[in-house]
Amino acid sequence: MSTFAFAVGVPTHNRSGDIIDCFFPAPLKEPSGDLAAAIGAHSTPGTHIMRPGDLTELARHAAGLGIDTMLEADRPLVVVRLTEDADITTTPEAFLKLHLISHRLALPNTLNLEGIFANLATVAWTSRGAVDPADLTALQLEARLRDEYFEVMSVDKFPKMTNYVIPSGVRIADSSRIRLGAFLGEGTTVMPSGAVNFNSGTIGPNMVEGRVSQGVILGEDSDLGGGASTMGTLSGGGEIKVSLGRNCLVGANGGTGIPLGDRCSIEAGLYITAGTLVSVIDEYGDTVHTVKARELAGGSDMLFIRHSHTGEVQCRTNRNAIALNEQLHAHN
Amino acid sequence: MSTFAFAVGVPTHNRSGDIIDCFFPAPLKEPSGDLAAAIGAHSTPGTHIMRPGDLTELARHAAGLGIDTMLEADRPLVVVRLTEDADITTTPEAFLKLHLISHRLALPNTLNLEGIFANLATVAWTSRGAVDPADLTALQLEARLRDEYFEVMSVDKFPKMTNYVIPSGVRIADSSRIRLGAFLGEGTTVMPSGAVNFNSGTIGPNMVEGRVSQGVILGEDSDLGGGASTMGTLSGGGEIKVSLGRNCLVGANGGTGIPLGDRCSIEAGLYITAGTLVSVIDEYGDTVHTVKARELAGGSDMLFIRHSHTGEVQCRTNRNAIALNEQLHAHN
Amino acid sequence: MSTFAFAVGVPTHNRSGDIIDCFFPAPLKEPSGDLAAAIGAHSTPGTHIMRPGDLTELARHAAGLGIDTMLEADRPLVVVRLTEDADITTTPEAFLKLHLISHRLALPNTLNLEGIFANLATVAWTSRGAVDPADLTALQLEARLRDEYFEVMSVDKFPKMTNYVIPSGVRIADSSRIRLGAFLGEGTTVMPSGAVNFNSGTIGPNMVEGRVSQGVILGEDSDLGGGASTMGTLSGGGEIKVSLGRNCLVGANGGTGIPLGDRCSIEAGLYITAGTLVSVIDEYGDTVHTVKARELAGGSDMLFIRHSHTGEVQCRTNRNAIALNEQLHAHN
Repeated sequence: MSTFAFAVGVPTHNRSGDIIDCFFPAPLKEPSGDLAAAIGAHSTPGTHIMRPGDLTELARHAAGLGIDTMLEADRPLVVVRLTEDADITTTPEAFLKLHLISHRLALPNTLNLEGIFANLATVAWTSRGAVDPADLTALQLEARLRDEYFEVMSVDKFPKMTNYVIPSGVRIADSSRIRLGAFLGEGTTVMPSGAVNFNSGTIGPNMVEGRVSQGVILGEDSDLGGGASTMGTLSGGGEIKVSLGRNCLVGANGGTGIPLGDRCSIEAGLYITAGTLVSVIDEYGDTVHTVKARELAGGSDMLFIRHSHTGEVQCRTNRNAIALNEQLHAHN
Repeated sequence: MSTFAFAVGVPTHNRSGDIIDCFFPAPLKEPSGDLAAAIGAHSTPGTHIMRPGDLTELARHAAGLGIDTMLEADRPLVVVRLTEDADITTTPEAFLKLHLISHRLALPNTLNLEGIFANLATVAWTSRGAVDPADLTALQLEARLRDEYFEVMSVDKFPKMTNYVIPSGVRIADSSRIRLGAFLGEGTTVMPSGAVNFNSGTIGPNMVEGRVSQGVILGEDSDLGGGASTMGTLSGGGEIKVSLGRNCLVGANGGTGIPLGDRCSIEAGLYITAGTLVSVIDEYGDTVHTVKARELAGGSDMLFIRHSHTGEVQCRTNRNAIALNEQLHAHN
Repeated sequence: MSTFAFAVGVPTHNRSGDIIDCFFPAPLKEPSGDLAAAIGAHSTPGTHIMRPGDLTELARHAAGLGIDTMLEADRPLVVVRLTEDADITTTPEAFLKLHLISHRLALPNTLNLEGIFANLATVAWTSRGAVDPADLTALQLEARLRDEYFEVMSVDKFPKMTNYVIPSGVRIADSSRIRLGAFLGEGTTVMPSGAVNFNSGTIGPNMVEGRVSQGVILGEDSDLGGGASTMGTLSGGGEIKVSLGRNCLVGANGGTGIPLGDRCSIEAGLYITAGTLVSVIDEYGDTVHTVKARELAGGSDMLFIRHSHTGEVQCRTNRNAIALNEQLHAHN
């Protein structure tokens, strides 16, 4: 039986014994060769809580998974082996899939995340780790009485990515804005007003000063200006999945509800939704036609502005791009 | 003498002996029955610092206030009993009122908060708790020399809510954006760009990706899009107090300087201030009249857009809503 | 040899022995008198790692630098003495210059920061201090196995200012949004959506709810509304350096790509870029001319709006201001 994904990690349980958090130092996707054989021989499909002693054979045959270090600690470990990319049915599976994306082993929108919300509890992420919100008040009072540090950083289904993985070559001004399950490509900088949701991200290099919504991907060398918005499918964006191709710029406080191809810009302060009526202007300054922005979805070489004299939303482009974009939509 | 509010808590003092922070695990508003009688019999109106030994009688008669746990610790406690909702005159009173709102015992705009700024010191909220900013440099140097953790999360009169109370059924991506004194109704989700000030909040369920300014309330099922703004009375919004009724949506990077009734929308990227000139359009597409947005304050069933072809700000509504909204303002 | 800047501090090294962080409790700029003489006599120009024992003479002659406390700790210290404001060539020099600005010893844009990016490593700022990102995974796993707190707050070249200096008379809602090297004048309040980059800041008093980009300064009594943007030279703002004079307001979700003089306002939601075509309207309501906003750079007494009926971007001003602003540009 093949292995789609595999990881050994450190679970956190709440007081009822439910797993509410998992840390996988070295998850694997579609392992091959000796590693795949070792996993196939020494693990069982599914999610399992095991004692370190149960993993010595696996550790001997599968180096590089960080298992050795974990075996030295006398505490239960969680082992997840997925044979296919099926719907999520356990909390550790959900954490494993989020790890895969943040470890750059899977691009956003390529994993089956069905069931993820149902399998992630709302957790208080605190200076004492993952805590069930129901247990908080008592712990907070105890800490206060003892003058001990107890900080609640967030109360959410998704933890911050940087407490699980820091991808190489990235800069993150404020880690509380990047959820586990974000994909940050090499050369990505996320400024304080930037935010990246799970199952979304950047190919890199990119400058992110705005909000990358769930499902959204930024192509190489594209920038999202300060406070800029990408409309997510979870947040009322409807059917259209937003993305930016290469060399795009959404200006500060701008936004897009349509996917953009390559070399597109939206001027600062302008929000293009799928329903925005746009006058398409060619390189001679002539208005070619007026369309809803959704008709321009995926097109390249487009500059969107709101004319500062007439208030008209315009897409400035050229005849070549118009022809190509029409072809794009003819094929849809 | 009746009790308007009551709480026993853990105070933090600065080096001069002033109280700069109070944690009340179980504040009460307008207690009744045996509890009210016990409080009346065993406490004195006002703000008092007491030793645990002074509270044994009260603890015996008033269960559920977390006093038992506090009595076990050998440290001074703070007791606040307010007989009426008077102006704030002590720091513990200020903290108590903020607790009442965040514990959902009082809605925003229903408590007398006069005097709150004068009674809250600017405090450094750190990994060692509340610290007087004047004491910081020495503490930071000591910590550095000992390689000890010392983090300053904020320097503000108001601490973050989640270190005092986590209301049930909420999700908060980044707790540093919710001040103590925020009211988060059941089913509220606050995303990384969301923020909720003290004395403001959500009835729930709500999705908050924008800024809920002081005094602002969001009704049931209303959403504030990413980066959306609600104009606060503290921040130059003037006399008008902003609120959203039920089933409203302020789109991403939009904003409102007027209160909205039910089922209103403001499109992404559009900011409606009280002075914005708005063309009111009925269901037949006819312009009924042009008014300043403040004339539409509180109206329902309104969709605000900036026409993408003409740049005109429009309120799309219907004859029924127009008639009702005119009545609303006739009664003002 | 004169001293341009001087400081003794606590360095952090990575596992390779490189300095990745410095804390200077009491940096000096252009010291004079006895202090300058003591520094001249007992220190050597450049960046040096020294043992406390090497600094006893300096400590005896130069009080007020926090050296005494540092001498009691048995750990290496870092001493930086700059004889002139030359390009940055070491990490401690970079940290010293950032400290100078945040300590209000140098205004933004007055120090030579050439070389700062090359001399600041990307560091993980964690609950265990500054950590080389390459060392993180092993540390995170160890902490997890021991149930110890290990939080990664940011991964960046610049740390948060408040862990190094808290200037007097400021309020900061969320310290993760203020980089070391920010200048916050007395009376500055930074709200949760506010952010201040290095080498930028506020003269004070100011209310900052938006983003102060690198190089940008806000004059006395000027406010940056919620989510408002100032275009930075690092982020595609081009040649023009943005600043706000006194008594300006950039409304919520607005923005500016040009410097503003005194008493200017940009209405909420409006973004003025250098290329925005603006109709200049005098006090009689007459359109004087239509110009690109860059022609208005630095002018005073201007109110920018987008007309809500026609969509036209207007600068409302008066004949006096127009004359003065024309003079301003005639002299450029």
